[in-house]
Amino acid sequence: MLTMQQALARLAEYWAGHGCLTVQPMNTEVGAGTLNPATFLRILGPEPWRVAYVEPSVRPDDSRYGDNPNRVQCHTQFQVILKPEPTNPQELYLGSLAALGIDVAAHDVRFVEDNWANPGMGAWGLGWEVWLDGLEITQFTYFQQAGGLNLDPPSVEITYGVERIIMALQGVTHFKEIRYAEGVTYGEVFGQAEYEMSRYYLDDADVDTNRALLEAYAAEAQRLIDAELPVPAQTYVLKCSHAFNVLDARGAVSTAERAAEFARMRRLAGEVARLWVARRAALSHPLGIATPPAPARPAAQSPVPADDAARTLVFEVGTEEMPPAEARAATAQLRREVADRLGATRLAHGAVTVQATPRRLVAVVAEVGAREPDHTRTVKGPKVAAAYRDGLPTPAVQGFARSQGVEVADLAEIEIGGVVHLAVRREEAGRPAAEVLAEVLGGAVAALRSAKNMRWSDPELSFTRPIRWLLALWGADVVPVAVSGLAAGRTTRVHRTAAAPVVEVAVADGYAGTVAAAGIVVDPQERADAIRAGAAALAAQVGGVVDLAGEAGLIAQVTYLVEQPTPLLGAFDPGYLELPEAVLTTVMRKHQRYLPVRGADGRLLPHFVAVANGAVDVDQVRAGNEAVLRARYEDAAFFYRADRRTPLDELRGRLARLTFTDKLGSMADRAARIGGLAATLADAIALGGAERATLDRAAALVKVDFGAQMVMELTSLAGVMAADYLRHAGEPAAVADAVSEAEQPRAAGDAVPASLPGAVLSLADRLDLVVGLAATIGLPTGSSDPFAVRRAALGLLAVHRSQPAFAALSLREALAAAAARQPVPVPAEVLAATAEFLTARFAQLLGEEGQPVDRVRAVLPHADRPVRTDRVLAQLAAAVESDQFRALAEAIQRCRRIVPDDVAAGYDAAALVEPAERTLHETLSAVRAELPAHPELDEFAKVAGRLVAPVRAFFDEVFVMAEEPALRAARLGLLAAVRDLGAGVLDWPHLRL
Amino acid sequence: MLTMQQALARLAEYWAGHGCLTVQPMNTEVGAGTLNPATFLRILGPEPWRVAYVEPSVRPDDSRYGDNPNRVQCHTQFQVILKPEPTNPQELYLGSLAALGIDVAAHDVRFVEDNWANPGMGAWGLGWEVWLDGLEITQFTYFQQAGGLNLDPPSVEITYGVERIIMALQGVTHFKEIRYAEGVTYGEVFGQAEYEMSRYYLDDADVDTNRALLEAYAAEAQRLIDAELPVPAQTYVLKCSHAFNVLDARGAVSTAERAAEFARMRRLAGEVARLWVARRAALSHPLGIATPPAPARPAAQSPVPADDAARTLVFEVGTEEMPPAEARAATAQLRREVADRLGATRLAHGAVTVQATPRRLVAVVAEVGAREPDHTRTVKGPKVAAAYRDGLPTPAVQGFARSQGVEVADLAEIEIGGVVHLAVRREEAGRPAAEVLAEVLGGAVAALRSAKNMRWSDPELSFTRPIRWLLALWGADVVPVAVSGLAAGRTTRVHRTAAAPVVEVAVADGYAGTVAAAGIVVDPQERADAIRAGAAALAAQVGGVVDLAGEAGLIAQVTYLVEQPTPLLGAFDPGYLELPEAVLTTVMRKHQRYLPVRGADGRLLPHFVAVANGAVDVDQVRAGNEAVLRARYEDAAFFYRADRRTPLDELRGRLARLTFTDKLGSMADRAARIGGLAATLADAIALGGAERATLDRAAALVKVDFGAQMVMELTSLAGVMAADYLRHAGEPAAVADAVSEAEQPRAAGDAVPASLPGAVLSLADRLDLVVGLAATIGLPTGSSDPFAVRRAALGLLAVHRSQPAFAALSLREALAAAAARQPVPVPAEVLAATAEFLTARFAQLLGEEGQPVDRVRAVLPHADRPVRTDRVLAQLAAAVESDQFRALAEAIQRCRRIVPDDVAAGYDAAALVEPAERTLHETLSAVRAELPAHPELDEFAKVAGRLVAPVRAFFDEVFVMAEEPALRAARLGLLAAVRDLGAGVLDWPHLRL
Repeated sequence: MLTMQQALARLAEYWAGHGCLTVQPMNTEVGAGTLNPATFLRILGPEPWRVAYVEPSVRPDDSRYGDNPNRVQCHTQFQVILKPEPTNPQELYLGSLAALGIDVAAHDVRFVEDNWANPGMGAWGLGWEVWLDGLEITQFTYFQQAGGLNLDPPSVEITYGVERIIMALQGVTHFKEIRYAEGVTYGEVFGQAEYEMSRYYLDDADVDTNRALLEAYAAEAQRLIDAELPVPAQTYVLKCSHAFNVLDARGAVSTAERAAEFARMRRLAGEVARLWVARRAALSHPLGIATPPAPARPAAQSPVPADDAARTLVFEVGTEEMPPAEARAATAQLRREVADRLGATRLAHGAVTVQATPRRLVAVVAEVGAREPDHTRTVKGPKVAAAYRDGLPTPAVQGFARSQGVEVADLAEIEIGGVVHLAVRREEAGRPAAEVLAEVLGGAVAALRSAKNMRWSDPELSFTRPIRWLLALWGADVVPVAVSGLAAGRTTRVHRTAAAPVVEVAVADGYAGTVAAAGIVVDPQERADAIRAGAAALAAQVGGVVDLAGEAGLIAQVTYLVEQPTPLLGAFDPGYLELPEAVLTTVMRKHQRYLPVRGADGRLLPHFVAVANGAVDVDQVRAGNEAVLRARYEDAAFFYRADRRTPLDELRGRLARLTFTDKLGSMADRAARIGGLAATLADAIALGGAERATLDRAAALVKVDFGAQMVMELTSLAGVMAADYLRHAGEPAAVADAVSEAEQPRAAGDAVPASLPGAVLSLADRLDLVVGLAATIGLPTGSSDPFAVRRAALGLLAVHRSQPAFAALSLREALAAAAARQPVPVPAEVLAATAEFLTARFAQLLGEEGQPVDRVRAVLPHADRPVRTDRVLAQLAAAVESDQFRALAEAIQRCRRIVPDDVAAGYDAAALVEPAERTLHETLSAVRAELPAHPELDEFAKVAGRLVAPVRAFFDEVFVMAEEPALRAARLGLLAAVRDLGAGVLDWPHLRL
Repeated sequence: MLTMQQALARLAEYWAGHGCLTVQPMNTEVGAGTLNPATFLRILGPEPWRVAYVEPSVRPDDSRYGDNPNRVQCHTQFQVILKPEPTNPQELYLGSLAALGIDVAAHDVRFVEDNWANPGMGAWGLGWEVWLDGLEITQFTYFQQAGGLNLDPPSVEITYGVERIIMALQGVTHFKEIRYAEGVTYGEVFGQAEYEMSRYYLDDADVDTNRALLEAYAAEAQRLIDAELPVPAQTYVLKCSHAFNVLDARGAVSTAERAAEFARMRRLAGEVARLWVARRAALSHPLGIATPPAPARPAAQSPVPADDAARTLVFEVGTEEMPPAEARAATAQLRREVADRLGATRLAHGAVTVQATPRRLVAVVAEVGAREPDHTRTVKGPKVAAAYRDGLPTPAVQGFARSQGVEVADLAEIEIGGVVHLAVRREEAGRPAAEVLAEVLGGAVAALRSAKNMRWSDPELSFTRPIRWLLALWGADVVPVAVSGLAAGRTTRVHRTAAAPVVEVAVADGYAGTVAAAGIVVDPQERADAIRAGAAALAAQVGGVVDLAGEAGLIAQVTYLVEQPTPLLGAFDPGYLELPEAVLTTVMRKHQRYLPVRGADGRLLPHFVAVANGAVDVDQVRAGNEAVLRARYEDAAFFYRADRRTPLDELRGRLARLTFTDKLGSMADRAARIGGLAATLADAIALGGAERATLDRAAALVKVDFGAQMVMELTSLAGVMAADYLRHAGEPAAVADAVSEAEQPRAAGDAVPASLPGAVLSLADRLDLVVGLAATIGLPTGSSDPFAVRRAALGLLAVHRSQPAFAALSLREALAAAAARQPVPVPAEVLAATAEFLTARFAQLLGEEGQPVDRVRAVLPHADRPVRTDRVLAQLAAAVESDQFRALAEAIQRCRRIVPDDVAAGYDAAALVEPAERTLHETLSAVRAELPAHPELDEFAKVAGRLVAPVRAFFDEVFVMAEEPALRAARLGLLAAVRDLGAGVLDWPHLRL
């Protein structure tokens, strides 16, 4: 078994053997090997570059005093850059695992979507986490941009997490137990440094000093950029980054500061990148220029078969592992592309089916004809009636003939819509299937696009992940597809670890059998069925079940993570069941994509179902996955125990160390504001009794679990952990729940607080956030919403709508109350803009919920009380079904149409003379008397409905525009009064009936 | 042939195979691998540790924009630590060279004394540079202290200079041409960084920022020390060190600042070291405690031979390579130790001879008897006279007998000095030679000490370098010497690269033949002869000679650098002969220990004689040495060309960037002061005409070559280069010489300026230095003289004494003139102290030159004008030989003796009555009239000599102490006038005749 230092040497040797330079780690602290100039600078520009190196990567945030078994402030990365990407980087990577002694066929090695971005570097790429039996051991990325520049050619970055790999290889469960070298453990070598550097990063680093360092570094970086020296400039950008990370670990960075620092680092990194590119060009690219790959030459076209029979077409687009969502989307797109393009030809064909695995899109078209039928093509020319002048063809006719390459004498005559035209008729022979299909399929491949596309070494293609091969068979013939750097053939690729990973397919109809023989399940439905059946059977072995319906989303995802699903049952120590279920399932689902197994009573069993890919050694893979889950649960249990041991006051005390934003203070400040505002809101809705007592206590504890390690680690558990920790600390369940509910809803569509105290806290939380940020950063515009103000606004609306009690709560007033508590002044216009912002979000939301736009607009006068709006909308939806209401609305509209806008509702009743107008006046007076101050729509419709007949009679019998001015004024005033009667009830003009 | 990255991998593999951990370079800039905590911290305390790693070492000072073929701001060290030292570290090291493919038998691999110290780390050690065919490729050190702490056990540090080794292995002449990896050169990989980082360190680093960083780092280091966190504290000490180096490279560090920064870093490093040691102890030494080596057991003692014949003793103390001076000193010491200790025994023996090579001290004692003769030992007891009381032995006698283990009755009587004592007589058998010699030789080894001693893994011994083996043969018998961890045997070690490096010696008389057969020349005289003869013969091959007499010092050194001298003739490109001879010979002698070869006309030939060790492959070794010299000359030529291309104004401009001291300004300020002061001095000595013109121009150019790269590199060439560069720039030869001479004398005994303008400048230079430093730092006390003020003072005196024209120049006045030009006030008391300091140095110097102390004291009134003092001393030396002068002196002394000190020289001549006193009065008046204002001794003696007879007559005939007061006063006043006549000429009372 390899020691860690042997493993590092093996990797270096392996990659040196594949043409990599080996260089040294960066001699200033970096968070990742990517920041080493051997990566960051070298991936820029056109020069080829292959390098491999070790990079001790410092993440102050990951400091754990050496106590956490899996987390260290300085972990060892092994970094590989291949530029240009060599077309087989995954295979090379698997070779490196084999060099470490890993049997890649026995283990479950998977490429799981993981898109990488480093905002501080202005860099991003697409790629994967590589999983070894569920353990993330490597980051594998095709870089697309760095320093804000597009990368051409793109590079592959392979970053091994060395400690993790070694722990798995050596089967140890704490990093300190790693055998670093013969007879010496990692803990013995690095343990003290791990403790002391953790102390520095978490406790002892001087904040003012590190802030001063950050500024000094940034200034020096800028100076060096001005001096056009990218190399030293970059070292100072790196120093900036580290100083920032130290401040961050010390909890001294506010959200706003973070954003500003990232912006500065991104700008500096961008300048460095531009300078480097320019300098390398000025030096005429000392390492040469990577040769772009040549366009592929298509396979030779087979002769058209003599039998002219229709044959099956199989077209396989071989890719590197696509993200599940992209594989599904690409299935649909390829189906559309093939069907549409085929439909635009005259080639006979049967059904088009497309299916996908992570590594392939497979289109099968039944009964594709051997050639297009022959065809007469007619090109319409000038009308015969105008074709000749003085018996000679006009210049137009001569021009037409010339353009078609025929003599005038050869022109035919055709009748179109009763008019005779000159025309050219051409007999065209149908093209052979090979020719048609090559065009169709090539076009389809070139058109493939995903939501987020990348470039690889192919000269033109762009897709979610690299396309590596094409198989195209019509019957036994290769369709000579050639698109950019790819030419189709008759070979497919099966599992990379198969004895024969590349397989030849003789004939289209044999494709399915060939890949199936290699274990590949092309049909996703079949894979999903296998997963479900396997999971159910495995769970049953331990007397449990998997909630197949509830886990449908996860299963759909897993279906596209494997080509050959191999479900397996794993177990974990039942002791971990003491952890809150949300912790256990969050880790299983979100991190590991395992299906939880439950007993008959619905409670979790200490088991899980993982789905491996291919014919792995199930025992080894199970053991690996179990070890991963154990490590993760051990982490969680570590946090959980530590948190539970921590008194609430101490947890709460930590909030003061967490900055919210520089202008809005700490998380403790924010919690205090939320608590105070909640009391104000409670007063507004006259909350009393036990609920009020609950609220008052919960308000004092809101956000308390943000001081807990578990929440720092798994932020999605904020609130969830509060419920647990508060109960554990002896708080009443209602209080614990209310504090927990303050974090709800977490996302659009998420549950809202069940209890009223929880809802009040949730509202207060979101009001504070929205108002504070509006006053300091501004409301979100365009796509920039770094503080997720939109999400908070939507949550705020959802919570208001969830509690009838909030009908009494005006958002404008609540916003004003929130504003009063901010540590910064909130100008009136900001408050007004914020209210409008909420109204706009609400209107948009209602539209998205399917409400007709006219009704939404009609009810907006109630948007200040969303829960009331919902009621009005519901009443309106019912009302518009009734003739009576429609008649009322029509009556009101009719009044509006005839009365100029500037006529106010008011009239001299004595001036009215006609019976119909007197009747209307009297009815209106009665209705007015009967209506409450702020009638709801139902009430209003019921009472005001009595006006329908008098209004109708008025219009039938009275001429509004009487000549006598006083009379005319009275009549217009009367109608205006009717018009305005329901002004507060609905915005009537918007209503379309 | 290995690429650089392969070589690094090989070294890592080799040392890992010898139990070393491999770790990563430090992730902050360090100047050497020694600073990595894997060295600096781990060599502390008792825990064992073996480690090997690459360390890219940043030396901002070595920045050369990538232009210099051999110098880079970031060079690659490969660092190995072996703790405890494994008793064969040199052999292991040679194994590593073999692993790199170096044939260590064919090449000349040598361990050349190089003691290492890092004042900033409070660390030092003894060891070597390792030379490969004259190229320094490795630093090899036994650490003795770090952080101010003694190291127990001591560690071995092996630091490979990787670029140099690779350049030699690959035979390339510029670092950029190194094949870093297959198909890629070092220049291609690192060239741009080398240029840009050089730009940063030399030109663009912001001084204020780096100064602020230095302070911030130091403060953080202190904070972490206070928090008892040595690991992060050390990283900040390293950051301090780097920031300091950056400032230094920018020329922003004054000498005083440097001293202060080193003191601070040393203090911080010491605190870190103490904390680390304490922490490791608190952790109970996680890596265990290195086992101290056991004391050796002596060889079994052979039976005394039957023949009882005397036999030769050979005793070899085998060491690692001793420094030449230490080997010579140890030769004498061992001779003394053996002779004295042997002399204290009764063992018969012949002559003791001791000889040494770098690796062995060999004592041969002729005719050593087989055993000591038997011997009667007598122990004296109480006197017989007092031995009995009442016929019974007194208690004293009883006690004596008891203490000797005999009965009273057995006591004998002996007579000592006529007194009879009781005594014990014991017949003692002589001890066998083996026993005697074991004691003698063991004691001699234990007593060996050098000027600077070290510890290694031996439990007790301490010497200039480790003692590794003992051979001790008396005849054919091993003498059972055992001292500390060493036991003598019959094996010796010959060349490490010999086929059989360990050889058995059968019999003492066979030793010489055995080692001679292996090529070892034990006799240094023989080696020196071989070197001389070889050098002469080789030089003759190219029609040249080696100045054997002139090079005697170098030859004496080389004699102790080799065990088997193999002189070889090397050549260099005659083009380099264009360089100034001083440059060429400085490099040859000082750096390479080559003997220069000259033609019949005394001019250098393009050849040199190097002396290799052992039966090397001469062609390979010659080629290696030639390459080294070429590289060094190429460096020098590079500097030379660059300097000559640089206009004088630019060279001078650079002086402003060189700080002299923080309070005394830049080197430009100092040059301006020297120039101005020189003019003042020239005025004082009324220098005029052509010499004055020369001085004025030279004063404007003084120190100009301190701005030259050659001088920055080889400071001993300051002045030498000025002569060349100024001539080249078209300055008159006299000006060039004067500027050059301003730097003379460089050391005690060195030549002084030949020209008067040069002497004036030299004086001004030294006056400025002494006064400036006296005013800012204080005059040197004890052994602390960091600015070499003593040397400057001695130079100043030597220069003054060298030019008769300086008789007109008062040092006090010159000091005052220098003081007036300082940028700081110079208090009068400082000036007075400085003058006294000079006088004291002068007096001491004169004493060292052999002048009798009385004369020195007598002439001190002239010490303000040293050149005049010398003249007076010379006159005095002549004068004291003449009776007339002695009579004069006696006359003056006689007057002094009779006249009380408080009697002034003055009298009423009219009061004098006796003829003798009248005659004296008249003669005195005539003498006074004749003497000039400031007579020299010669003049004075000649004129004042006329007083001798009158004085004598006066004392013969006149009774001084007349009763009449006026008469007595006149007589005393007359004698006082004689006494004081020569007061300014000599300090007569000190003169002893």
